[in-house]
Amino acid sequence: SRSLRLAVIPGDGIGQEVVAEGLKVLGAALPADVKVEATEYDLGARRYHRTGETLPDSVLEELKGHDAILLGAIGDPSVPSGVLERGLLLKLRFAFDHHINLRPGKLFPGVKSPLAGEPDIDFVVVREGTEGPYVGNGGTLRTGTEHEVATEVSLNTAYGIERVVRDAYRRADSRPRKKLTLVHKNNVLVHAGHLWTRIFQQVGQEFPEVTTDYLHVDAATIFFVTQPERFDVIVTDNLFGDILTDLAAAVTGGIGLAASGNINPSGDFPSMFEPVHGSAPDIAGQGKADPTATVLSVAMLLEHLGFTAEAAKVEAAVAADLAERAGVRSTSQVGDALVARVSG
Amino acid sequence: SRSLRLAVIPGDGIGQEVVAEGLKVLGAALPADVKVEATEYDLGARRYHRTGETLPDSVLEELKGHDAILLGAIGDPSVPSGVLERGLLLKLRFAFDHHINLRPGKLFPGVKSPLAGEPDIDFVVVREGTEGPYVGNGGTLRTGTEHEVATEVSLNTAYGIERVVRDAYRRADSRPRKKLTLVHKNNVLVHAGHLWTRIFQQVGQEFPEVTTDYLHVDAATIFFVTQPERFDVIVTDNLFGDILTDLAAAVTGGIGLAASGNINPSGDFPSMFEPVHGSAPDIAGQGKADPTATVLSVAMLLEHLGFTAEAAKVEAAVAADLAERAGVRSTSQVGDALVARVSG
Ligand SMILES: CC(C)[C@H](C(=O)O)[C@@H](O)C(=O)O
Ligand SMILES: CC(C)[C@H](C(=O)O)[C@@H](O)C(=O)O
Repeated sequence: SRSLRLAVIPGDGIGQEVVAEGLKVLGAALPADVKVEATEYDLGARRYHRTGETLPDSVLEELKGHDAILLGAIGDPSVPSGVLERGLLLKLRFAFDHHINLRPGKLFPGVKSPLAGEPDIDFVVVREGTEGPYVGNGGTLRTGTEHEVATEVSLNTAYGIERVVRDAYRRADSRPRKKLTLVHKNNVLVHAGHLWTRIFQQVGQEFPEVTTDYLHVDAATIFFVTQPERFDVIVTDNLFGDILTDLAAAVTGGIGLAASGNINPSGDFPSMFEPVHGSAPDIAGQGKADPTATVLSVAMLLEHLGFTAEAAKVEAAVAADLAERAGVRSTSQVGDALVARVSG
Repeated sequence: SRSLRLAVIPGDGIGQEVVAEGLKVLGAALPADVKVEATEYDLGARRYHRTGETLPDSVLEELKGHDAILLGAIGDPSVPSGVLERGLLLKLRFAFDHHINLRPGKLFPGVKSPLAGEPDIDFVVVREGTEGPYVGNGGTLRTGTEHEVATEVSLNTAYGIERVVRDAYRRADSRPRKKLTLVHKNNVLVHAGHLWTRIFQQVGQEFPEVTTDYLHVDAATIFFVTQPERFDVIVTDNLFGDILTDLAAAVTGGIGLAASGNINPSGDFPSMFEPVHGSAPDIAGQGKADPTATVLSVAMLLEHLGFTAEAAKVEAAVAADLAERAGVRSTSQVGDALVARVSG
C-alpha cells in the first residue's frame, strides 16, 4: 500500500471547517491502497498570539518532508495586517519556490454569475508566485513622521519569468483553444513590462500552435466583465494575478468556489493547495462556509500528484453538486454530499 | 468679456474626433460673455514619427499659460509601448503635479451594465496621480540577456498621500452618504500600505462625519461586480486606481462613457481633462467613436474652473441623451444632440 504524506494547515477562521471537508473528499477519492498520512500544523493567529511565531524554522523543515500541503485560510483581524500574510503564507510560497500559482476561472453550469447573459467562462490564470511586488523588498524612511517615504520594489528576473511563461504556454498548448494572453502594464511599468513582453515573445517561438495576445491589466479587467469567454490561459505577474483572480472568482460565482495551487513543478519542495478565499472571521465556527473551493483545491492536489482520474472524479462531483444545488446547506452537508458522489 | 484659455491636445486615433465634439459642447455651455481661446497642440504619434519628440520643453512651457487642458487620447501601435505614455501623458501629469486623478463611476439611467439586476452605481474614485509605481523609478541589469533583472520602484510619501487623502475626505464629506473607502494591499505591500493606512486614519480625525472602511485591492474588484452600490468615495494609489477605474467604467456601461480629471487643486499649473478610453485605432477616422466620455470630461473641466451651473447643464444633457438613446449615431450626431440639449 502506498502512502500520501500530507501536511495540513487549517489556519484561521473558516480554514478549519473547510479543510475538514476537503480531507473527507480526499479520502473518498483516493484509490483504496493509498493511505493519507495527514499531519496537522497549528499555524496562524492562535499560534502567533500564543508564541509570537508565524512559521518557525523547525516547522518549515518538517513541511519539506511531505508530498503536498493543504491550507485552509490565514488571517485574523486581531493580528496586524501583513504579519501572517508575509510571515506565513508568503513565506511558504517563497521558501518552497511556488512559482506557478494556478487559478482556474470556470463558471460551472447551475452557478449564477453576477454578469448578465450567462457567459461561458472557462479559463485558467497562471500567476507568477515568487517575484514582482511580492518580494518584500522596500522600506520606510522617517517612519511615522510627516516626512515619511515608503518604497516597494518589484523584482523581476528573466529566469523567473521564463519558467512561468513556459508553463503557461504548455498549458495553453494542451487545451483545445490553445490561446495565451499576457497581462501586464508595459506602457507604464516599462522595465518589468518589457522584460515580460520580450520573454513572452521568445518562448512563444517554441509553441507555434498557440495563439497569443497582450492586454494591459486595466483593459483586462474590462474584458473579465464584458467578454470573459475570450480568455483561455492567462499568464501574469504576481500582483496583477492576485487582483485578476479575485475578479475571476467574482464573475464565476464567488470566492466560495475558487481553488488554487501554489506549485513547484520541480518537486524539490511540496506544492501547496488552498482556496482563494480568506478566513472570513465573520462566519467562522458557524458551519456556514462553503467548502467547495477547498474541495476543488483538493482536486488540483490530486492532479498534481498524478492522480488524474481521481482529480477528474472530484471535479465531476463538484460540477454535479453545483448543478443540482438548492437550498442552504451547512459546510459538512456539502462535504458529505461530495463524498457520496465521489464514492458512488 | 472674459476668456478661457484652453490648451487642446487631440492626440491619436479617435482623440481628434471626440475632442471636436467636446469643444462644441463646451462652447454651447459657457455663458455668452466667456470666449474660449483654444490653442491646439499637435502631440502624439504623428509628431513623434515626424520629429522624434513626445513633449518638447517649449510646449510644456506654453501649456503652463492656460487655464486648463483638454486631451483626447494618446497611443498608437506604431509607437513602442511606453514611449508616448511615459513621454507625454504621464510627463504632463507629473510636470503639472496632477495629484488628484478624479474618476466618477456612475451608471446613468438607460445605460446597460454588464452586471445583472440593474445595480445603482454612483461613486467616485480619487486616484493618486503623481506617486506609487508610476514614478518611473526602476531599471534593468544585464538587459536583453537570460540573466536580465528588471525593477520597478513604487515611491510613496506622507506628503503625497496626505493631500490626496484629505481631498477624498472633503469630497466624501460633501456627498449625502459621506462614505470613504481606502483601497490598497497593505497585507503584502506593507511599507507603502501601512503609510497609506496611517495617514488615512490620521486625516480621518478631521472628518468625524465621514464613515470609513478599508479593502484590499483584490477584494475591491469583487465588490465592484457583486455590490457596486456599497461605494461612495474611494481613495487609492496610482496603479490600483488605474485598474479599478477601468473596471468601474466597464460596470457602468463602458469606457465610452468614463470621464476623468487630472487635477492640481493649487491652480499653479493647468489641470487636464480626458476621457478614460484610449485612442482606439481600430475605429479611428470613421466617425464611430462615442464622444460622451469627452463631453463628461468637459463637464468636469467646467466644474473645476468654477462654472458649476454650466457643468451641471452638460451632465444633465448627457443624462437625458443616454436615457433616450436609440439606434446607432455617429460621433458628431451625438455631439450635435448634446449641443442642442445644452443650448435648449
Ligand atoms: C492573503 C494574501 C497575502 C494573498 C495574496 O495576496 O496572494 C491572497 O490575496 C491570495 O490571493 O492568495
Ligand atoms: C495610458 C496609460 C498611461 C494611462 C494610465 O495608466 O494612467 C491610462 O490607462 C489611464 O488610466 O489614464
